[in-house]
Amino acid sequence: MAKVLGVLGGMGPAATVAFLARVQALTPAQGDQDHIRIIADINPQVPDRNRQSDAAEATLGQMAMRLRDAGAQVLCMPCNTAHAQAAGIRKVGLPFIDMIAETTEAAAAGGAKKIGVLATPGGEALYARALQGKGVKIVRLTGAAREAFMSCVHAVKRGDLGEGPRAEMRRLAATLVAAGAEAVIAGCTEVPLLLGAGDVSVPLVDSAEVLAQVCVDRCK
Amino acid sequence: MAKVLGVLGGMGPAATVAFLARVQALTPAQGDQDHIRIIADINPQVPDRNRQSDAAEATLGQMAMRLRDAGAQVLCMPCNTAHAQAAGIRKVGLPFIDMIAETTEAAAAGGAKKIGVLATPGGEALYARALQGKGVKIVRLTGAAREAFMSCVHAVKRGDLGEGPRAEMRRLAATLVAAGAEAVIAGCTEVPLLLGAGDVSVPLVDSAEVLAQVCVDRCK
Repeated sequence: MAKVLGVLGGMGPAATVAFLARVQALTPAQGDQDHIRIIADINPQVPDRNRQSDAAEATLGQMAMRLRDAGAQVLCMPCNTAHAQAAGIRKVGLPFIDMIAETTEAAAAGGAKKIGVLATPGGEALYARALQGKGVKIVRLTGAAREAFMSCVHAVKRGDLGEGPRAEMRRLAATLVAAGAEAVIAGCTEVPLLLGAGDVSVPLVDSAEVLAQVCVDRCK
Repeated sequence: MAKVLGVLGGMGPAATVAFLARVQALTPAQGDQDHIRIIADINPQVPDRNRQSDAAEATLGQMAMRLRDAGAQVLCMPCNTAHAQAAGIRKVGLPFIDMIAETTEAAAAGGAKKIGVLATPGGEALYARALQGKGVKIVRLTGAAREAFMSCVHAVKRGDLGEGPRAEMRRLAATLVAAGAEAVIAGCTEVPLLLGAGDVSVPLVDSAEVLAQVCVDRCK
């Protein structure tokens, strides 16, 4: 039975639009009517998830409530970092597809025992816990690589999808592989705008792709 | 003062996502917070605008009401054909940006006295009236060209953005130019997914681009 998907978006805006396109691409469709109905709140003004955690949680809760009242039946949020504030969303009582849990599940299913994570500090902390729960070691970005990663994320948020940030993101993924990662999680929805599976020598598990596929499976 | 934009979408789904990306591309932004908040109802199950006009109008009215109640302050609908049923949307009392009127205005501003229109039969009828109001003659697709156009639109709705429909759409635009069009309106939101300004020998006025720009101007 088809369900209406509610999307808490805008973190960032380009990543949300790429996610919506991904959901459509993964939906078997011969025409408009075969697609999932999606109500998306693309809100780029959600308070900073790292610095104003409580305010962010309250805003996400309000967004979830409005999506529910507008007709959404299943919720998702294509932003890994903001899952630290997912409690506000869960309170509204709709099924919420957990991007961190689903991506960790998909990555661990490949059998890797050491998995690299390309994520913000907040997102990385969520993946560290989730991977540990699966008995998998996390390979992290550190020092200058961590700063370089955040520069790439901000480049996307500025609209720069050029070769500069792309090359940098490839280099960061290679750093994780060199440190022993047998798979790499693209654990920030800005990452796939710069990095594809063909850019990494080990399996790349894209959190946006995993989430999109689960959304299609649940709502189609 | 920033305003929340409500988007009545899904007609079709790919065109709506392309429109959302266009709004973002046209927004001057250094980071997430600079973007417009958008609440989009991407509803691919709106009843057929050509065959079930009354049902479509009722559904669009409900969508507009839900967007309003979810916090939208300005409404738009990136589907030209569905503007025939816009009365249902206008009833909810929010400002509604009229894609047909804005595109006609932009096209006529270029000074052309004969303008070609790439649109569905329903969309074409709306443009015929709007262009007449500006004292501009419309150049229409006819016969086999009309059927070929609808095949291109359905190709996009099936997810086919390949060279086949692209070449066909270029040919159709050229047909309008050969018939005297001094400018061409891409009057169906599927058209820009196949045809760019560089593909046409006269100015191409893309209704999706015009609408996106007006939305940025009004909501930013």
